[in-house]
Amino acid sequence: MSDFNKTRSEFHLPEGLIYLDGNSLGPLPRKAAERVASTITAEWGDMLVTGWNKAGWMAKPTDIGDRIGKLIGAPAGTVVMGDTLSIKVFQALASALRLRPDRKIILSDTGNFPSDLYMAEGLVGLLGQDYSLETVAPEEVEGAIDETVAVTLITEVDYRTGRMHDMKRITEKAHAAGALTVWDLAHSAGAVPVDLTGADADFAVGCTYKYLNSGPGGPAFIYVRPDLAESAEPALAGWLGHEQPFAFDQNYRPGRGIERMRVGTPPVLQMAALEAALDIWDMTTMADVRARSIELTERFIAGVEAACPELTLATPREAALRGSQVSFRHPEGYAIMQALIARKVIGDFRAPDILRFGFTPLYIGEAEVEGAVKIIAEVMDGKLWDREEYKRRARVT
Amino acid sequence: MSDFNKTRSEFHLPEGLIYLDGNSLGPLPRKAAERVASTITAEWGDMLVTGWNKAGWMAKPTDIGDRIGKLIGAPAGTVVMGDTLSIKVFQALASALRLRPDRKIILSDTGNFPSDLYMAEGLVGLLGQDYSLETVAPEEVEGAIDETVAVTLITEVDYRTGRMHDMKRITEKAHAAGALTVWDLAHSAGAVPVDLTGADADFAVGCTYKYLNSGPGGPAFIYVRPDLAESAEPALAGWLGHEQPFAFDQNYRPGRGIERMRVGTPPVLQMAALEAALDIWDMTTMADVRARSIELTERFIAGVEAACPELTLATPREAALRGSQVSFRHPEGYAIMQALIARKVIGDFRAPDILRFGFTPLYIGEAEVEGAVKIIAEVMDGKLWDREEYKRRARVT
Repeated sequence: MSDFNKTRSEFHLPEGLIYLDGNSLGPLPRKAAERVASTITAEWGDMLVTGWNKAGWMAKPTDIGDRIGKLIGAPAGTVVMGDTLSIKVFQALASALRLRPDRKIILSDTGNFPSDLYMAEGLVGLLGQDYSLETVAPEEVEGAIDETVAVTLITEVDYRTGRMHDMKRITEKAHAAGALTVWDLAHSAGAVPVDLTGADADFAVGCTYKYLNSGPGGPAFIYVRPDLAESAEPALAGWLGHEQPFAFDQNYRPGRGIERMRVGTPPVLQMAALEAALDIWDMTTMADVRARSIELTERFIAGVEAACPELTLATPREAALRGSQVSFRHPEGYAIMQALIARKVIGDFRAPDILRFGFTPLYIGEAEVEGAVKIIAEVMDGKLWDREEYKRRARVT
Repeated sequence: MSDFNKTRSEFHLPEGLIYLDGNSLGPLPRKAAERVASTITAEWGDMLVTGWNKAGWMAKPTDIGDRIGKLIGAPAGTVVMGDTLSIKVFQALASALRLRPDRKIILSDTGNFPSDLYMAEGLVGLLGQDYSLETVAPEEVEGAIDETVAVTLITEVDYRTGRMHDMKRITEKAHAAGALTVWDLAHSAGAVPVDLTGADADFAVGCTYKYLNSGPGGPAFIYVRPDLAESAEPALAGWLGHEQPFAFDQNYRPGRGIERMRVGTPPVLQMAALEAALDIWDMTTMADVRARSIELTERFIAGVEAACPELTLATPREAALRGSQVSFRHPEGYAIMQALIARKVIGDFRAPDILRFGFTPLYIGEAEVEGAVKIIAEVMDGKLWDREEYKRRARVT
């Protein structure tokens, strides 16, 4: 078993805070500040433009992509960093639709993160010609896959409830119907073991600022199945995805394999923070993280259910069916979460009634679970929330 | 006149280097390291997810957009930061095409930066239905605008030669033909006075890591003319461009005005560096920068032409017709630039034969101009370059 006290010591965690919101924004890896500072002064400052080669900035999107690939079952050379998750959703969908030119339907589910649905909506709006986005309830998505579907767009782990789709089974179903799959790993990468190769996933996208701890606005990633990569035509045909960016050709020729999914100049400072965050992942394994995550979430569910009968579990009780978060429902969930935050238990509220808590074994242990249960019980027992509190603006997912 | 010794002291400039490549990557503002460090430790580290509101991260794309707006003649509330320039080109073009649904042509010129052309090519490929990208020589672009053109895509200042298009005249011509304009300000913002309002430009996009000195991979910006902003439909319909991102609606409703051009989570660390860089712009005016830039470029042209008859000026001799760079042609330009770089005069080579030198008065003065002229003359006089040197990979534009 990995030493989670060791990984924990790699994070800056404010004194007295029980931070169960790493599924929104991961905490600061202690070495990130130093890494970014050195990128700024020793690289940007002293190397100036030569940093693109001398400091390896130009190769970072694929170098880092390979490191993330190890956490999601993707071989070297199949993952590249850049842009935001929303852009990567658009990019994956546009490529998938071109690979199924006779089909017009993107199939998604109502449990998907809204930005995925919006990007799909924007894409079909742009394409016109009877293209459409169809959404069904999460439990109906598998049954809705048929020969009319060009591509499925599914977030593996539901951002509100933590319910996890069966990637392998849905992908098999999609392939049997001749459809492709785009998997959003926002709440999977670093949270649960992902095996893109084993599941035969076609495209996958994800962000790095949640369980991977890259910091606010860290770059997204995209995976393309190796045997599709050379035939996937990029719709976002940026110069860094060109076969020879520095030839400055007038015409676009896609780069080799995953390189073609690069678009513009990569965010070097954000990538430096991400590299420091990934170093911590070298100290553990996804299997250990998952085992520990299940221990922690089981303990949390048992504790809250024993103490707070008014809170209804929204997350699947069976560990295999959920990600690394636990959610409860309560009609006054928003006000309850405010009361918890005031008492330094940081979770998230998601409309209309979800209290969401993320468990990330890299820095969360039994003490935090017990502490959180105790405070949640106090707040619920004493009805310590402001029942009149009107909804203020919620925070970033 | 602004005190350029003062702005110069705000930059870290490596000893002995004559850096004439700020039009590729601007140098490090001394306060950027501290600003980013404080964003990392005091904001990300201590505020964690609450930084989105408490530290104002969520509002930074428009707050910073307003500051950049002042440098490009754009009123408050018309510019927003995010993504990369290539993505912003796509976004502007897609919106423009929707505003001219009966027209199918994007008109550009062969002097445009290749990524702009690639993104346009990717977009028309995606749209199909007879959409096309047409390119003509830069000097022919004005004459090629007619009633078939939906939108022009023009980079104001040519990245190779520094030749500057007349934004106002071309925009007038476009409007007279019922076309819209997308202006790429990559080599304009912070380089020359830009008056988007005065020119009645429809869309403008640009990057911040050249003359604005935001560092490698700094975010791009997009401007939409205020009276178009509410009717411009975003094709890249990301959640942060939604009217209420935190309502987590299933359907996209575009945000107000320029807010709808936001897509995904903004790069907070890169924005912190950009803010430090923009503070330096508060110490001067674009008019002073331009006046000084003309002095420096005139002096450089005169010096090189007097000393190096083998180098042919590629930049317009008339200052009003060029940006803030000077380029010369030579068949062995690549090898010559390597020889200059070895002697610590940093410029850029651009295929096939362009030697490119950027002049940014914020930190470049007569001493650098004279020093560069002297070394260029030595290299040319003594034929000090490796005439056999094969072309190695060039650097980022």
